[in-house]
Amino acid sequence: MLGLMQEWPLLCNKILDHAAVQHGGREVVSRSVEGPIVRSTYKDIRGKALRLAQKLERHGYRPADRLATLAWNTSRHLEVWYGAMGMGGIYHTLNPRLHPDQLAWIMNQAEDRAIFVDVLLMPIVEQIAGKVSSLRDIVVLTDGANLPRTDLPNVVAYEDWLEDCDGDYTWRDMDEHAACGMCYTSGTTGDPKGVLYSHRSNVLHAWIACMPDAMGLSARDVVMPLVPLFHANAWGLGQAAPMAGAKLVMPGAKLDGASVFELLDTEKVTFSAAVPTVWLNLLQYLESTEHELPHLQRIMVGGSACPRTVIEKFQNKYGVEVIQIWGMTELSPIGSLCTLKPQHEGMSEDARLDVQEKQGAAPFGVEMKITDNEGAALPWNGKSFGRLKVRGPAVAAGYYRGAGAEHYDAVGWFDTGDIAHIDPDGFMQVVDRAKDVIKSGGEWISTIILENLAVGHVDVAEAAVIGVAHPKWVERPLLVIVPKPGRQPSRDEILSFIEGKVAKWWLPDDVAFVEAIPHTATGKIQKTALRDMFKEYTFQGA
Amino acid sequence: MLGLMQEWPLLCNKILDHAAVQHGGREVVSRSVEGPIVRSTYKDIRGKALRLAQKLERHGYRPADRLATLAWNTSRHLEVWYGAMGMGGIYHTLNPRLHPDQLAWIMNQAEDRAIFVDVLLMPIVEQIAGKVSSLRDIVVLTDGANLPRTDLPNVVAYEDWLEDCDGDYTWRDMDEHAACGMCYTSGTTGDPKGVLYSHRSNVLHAWIACMPDAMGLSARDVVMPLVPLFHANAWGLGQAAPMAGAKLVMPGAKLDGASVFELLDTEKVTFSAAVPTVWLNLLQYLESTEHELPHLQRIMVGGSACPRTVIEKFQNKYGVEVIQIWGMTELSPIGSLCTLKPQHEGMSEDARLDVQEKQGAAPFGVEMKITDNEGAALPWNGKSFGRLKVRGPAVAAGYYRGAGAEHYDAVGWFDTGDIAHIDPDGFMQVVDRAKDVIKSGGEWISTIILENLAVGHVDVAEAAVIGVAHPKWVERPLLVIVPKPGRQPSRDEILSFIEGKVAKWWLPDDVAFVEAIPHTATGKIQKTALRDMFKEYTFQGA
Repeated sequence: MLGLMQEWPLLCNKILDHAAVQHGGREVVSRSVEGPIVRSTYKDIRGKALRLAQKLERHGYRPADRLATLAWNTSRHLEVWYGAMGMGGIYHTLNPRLHPDQLAWIMNQAEDRAIFVDVLLMPIVEQIAGKVSSLRDIVVLTDGANLPRTDLPNVVAYEDWLEDCDGDYTWRDMDEHAACGMCYTSGTTGDPKGVLYSHRSNVLHAWIACMPDAMGLSARDVVMPLVPLFHANAWGLGQAAPMAGAKLVMPGAKLDGASVFELLDTEKVTFSAAVPTVWLNLLQYLESTEHELPHLQRIMVGGSACPRTVIEKFQNKYGVEVIQIWGMTELSPIGSLCTLKPQHEGMSEDARLDVQEKQGAAPFGVEMKITDNEGAALPWNGKSFGRLKVRGPAVAAGYYRGAGAEHYDAVGWFDTGDIAHIDPDGFMQVVDRAKDVIKSGGEWISTIILENLAVGHVDVAEAAVIGVAHPKWVERPLLVIVPKPGRQPSRDEILSFIEGKVAKWWLPDDVAFVEAIPHTATGKIQKTALRDMFKEYTFQGA
Repeated sequence: MLGLMQEWPLLCNKILDHAAVQHGGREVVSRSVEGPIVRSTYKDIRGKALRLAQKLERHGYRPADRLATLAWNTSRHLEVWYGAMGMGGIYHTLNPRLHPDQLAWIMNQAEDRAIFVDVLLMPIVEQIAGKVSSLRDIVVLTDGANLPRTDLPNVVAYEDWLEDCDGDYTWRDMDEHAACGMCYTSGTTGDPKGVLYSHRSNVLHAWIACMPDAMGLSARDVVMPLVPLFHANAWGLGQAAPMAGAKLVMPGAKLDGASVFELLDTEKVTFSAAVPTVWLNLLQYLESTEHELPHLQRIMVGGSACPRTVIEKFQNKYGVEVIQIWGMTELSPIGSLCTLKPQHEGMSEDARLDVQEKQGAAPFGVEMKITDNEGAALPWNGKSFGRLKVRGPAVAAGYYRGAGAEHYDAVGWFDTGDIAHIDPDGFMQVVDRAKDVIKSGGEWISTIILENLAVGHVDVAEAAVIGVAHPKWVERPLLVIVPKPGRQPSRDEILSFIEGKVAKWWLPDDVAFVEAIPHTATGKIQKTALRDMFKEYTFQGA
């Protein structure tokens, strides 16, 4: 017997409708890529999105068309998302930091029919447009006066393009499972893979994100997503902020400390979200200028683990609560949030920071488990670590065009590729990537835990651990150290510093001293390159 | 093109699973109907619910079976909800305040196969069991030692009944649209009508309820639902509290001021929800004892409009935020909540109270409109009032067995039967019931607004307004007054007191003085009876 409740499909555009009806005058403030701060409202955004949907349909675009965006966070970028979704299309965010060849590869696989691009990013489009045969229109997110000169055909200024549309349009009625958004994973292990969000998954994810113990977004909040819209679905903020009716502040292309501080201060931002680097830059700026953060209440930190000192400084010096968030493009992206539970109240500062360094607990809507290599569940004791797997209504069931089936276990859980433990309170901590963890005699050793210990030594500037082939144990850890300038620590000094802090069999078999460790473009240690550097290495006596 | 996200049906039992996994040790404290305070946890509740589901299935119950509950708020009542839903059954809450004949009528229409009943309410079951032919088992929510003597066959004690089940059971996999709960409306206009909630509607409603600008429930909250589980789906708290992982305090059968205060105080309740009468009783108790409310942060008031003095006292004297909630059984029940928006900050106390007296704004997931009798939308100007209509994923699409189709307009919106206006901020205020509003010359006059004005006169104890037939205007208002003891206000005094405060054509045509106004069992003015009293009345000169 079915319930007798109304059919009300979960469609993203209903979020914008709600924002326009219930919070119509709430501002969306952008630092435009042309320069000036521009002010808009949810009602304006909806009006522009309606005009865009109308334009797209008149111009021959059809439901399921992929509409690429290559743009920073501005109100126009948000208009494109909702205009695209409202006519049944699929917004497809592109990361301008990728190599143009990779962008062209992605656009060809996605068969993008249009691209909406910032003035600043037109040079990238000039390099790739000729390589993407599906591409029909290049819409520059500006007005005619600011349109850059280009030899490309089919280039129009967004504001001019919409001129002949009045917005007298009704959002297309759709199945809530229809695709509405697309984002490719970075592809560190093979070709990039497309994640295809549905209206349903985005709406449910927005509810998950807004919950009091997640982002806790209210109409009284002023939300500044420093995380770009092209990064992991903007952590859900493109839907969550209008669902809550929060004022939005869009930082455009400038994420340096001074620019971020300016908007935090003048727009009275209460909530913001970014990767650790952005917060480190802000802290440096604050310390050099002695500015304060009287309005900011809480910040989300994700993308990589947040250093303890960042948590400490924001909380103790600036009175800003720091909440770690862990997620992935495939999770829409929320997997866990480190909001404290009642059992953490009354803890010592140090014990609380130990908890806050974890990636946090799964909210309702995300199920989590850790398993060994055979898929058997491991206990939640804060020690046993294994492959982290998740499932939920906003978790990818697969990738575009069938790629990546190996990421799913026999019962359909998504294998995140992370190695983690979970404590009895449900708080998860990532200890490694599956491809980096060292398999020693059938057991696993976390390279991240060893690295974090090694950098605690006074003479160590940077540390990395890799597995090196071993005849008896399959793999054993090799610790690679960059000493601080002028320091020359010895192998034994370093190893005895670590000894006693980990199980005996975790102790690296050797220490190698190098001048530099290779990094990726985003500053992470490039372990594949490091393993290449040491491919000829053998342990003495092994 | 469909999105590529996981199938993860929205099932209520996933909420309990989440609570048991992520908040397993969080307490569910009950004042048992047997007397003592009993302590349980979400993990315990899940364990018991699994045993009940297993028992029901072994005992021949099947998906879609209706399982009635006639019980106060206790952990056992919650176990029955989740046990019933987990095996695919439908919990059906019965209101013990209804007449036994009406209960029997409802149970027969619902074809309830079992009833789970509190010890205290067994006398009701003794009266009706013989009249409900579908009824198979009477399960008393107690243990063998406390089982009352009865001549009824098939009576068992809940705890004993579960003894042979170990809980080794997996929740039944279901369509998220499957029915999971049932609640009959009170039937003031005709036979009671059954609302049939689905798993999907209850889960979505829980998200709506938990949002920061709705109930704002966190794992750090201690939630006491004073609103009974049998009243309008317990305002969603049966799902929302475990979704948030909040500690639950269940008040059992005692809702008097002293009992309510005891639990608020000893269990450190931060959030509670009840009808105005319960809060009035608590205020009287507090004033007579000089107790304080140091833990309570906010209360929800619904069921009928909250008197301004109640809002004032809780906020100013006790530091407790008061939030009006408006809803209906058919809405799961949330329609609107009066949480202040940023534009209300910095208002004067008086202006803020004017806002707080409204029923509030619709959250995302509830769409609202007001229309005239022909269905044309009216503006949101805080003045124009019309029929209040809603739609959303947790709004009934109809009633059990096809009753009540007249409650839906041509485009599928549910007509609430309320007459309301909505202000430019989206805040709705109910001004009348559609069956009470006076139709005068094609325009409407709110009886509630006139009544509220009339009771402001120093000599008036109670006031009611009804429409009386009029040859020219169809209906005109008659004001019925109960004077305060020893006072004898005149017709003209009363009318001139109202004059100038409403449009001229709203002024009642006459005033009738009576000794008493008829009331319903729940204390509301019984307008049908009042209209009967005055059915022979004609206006002089009309």
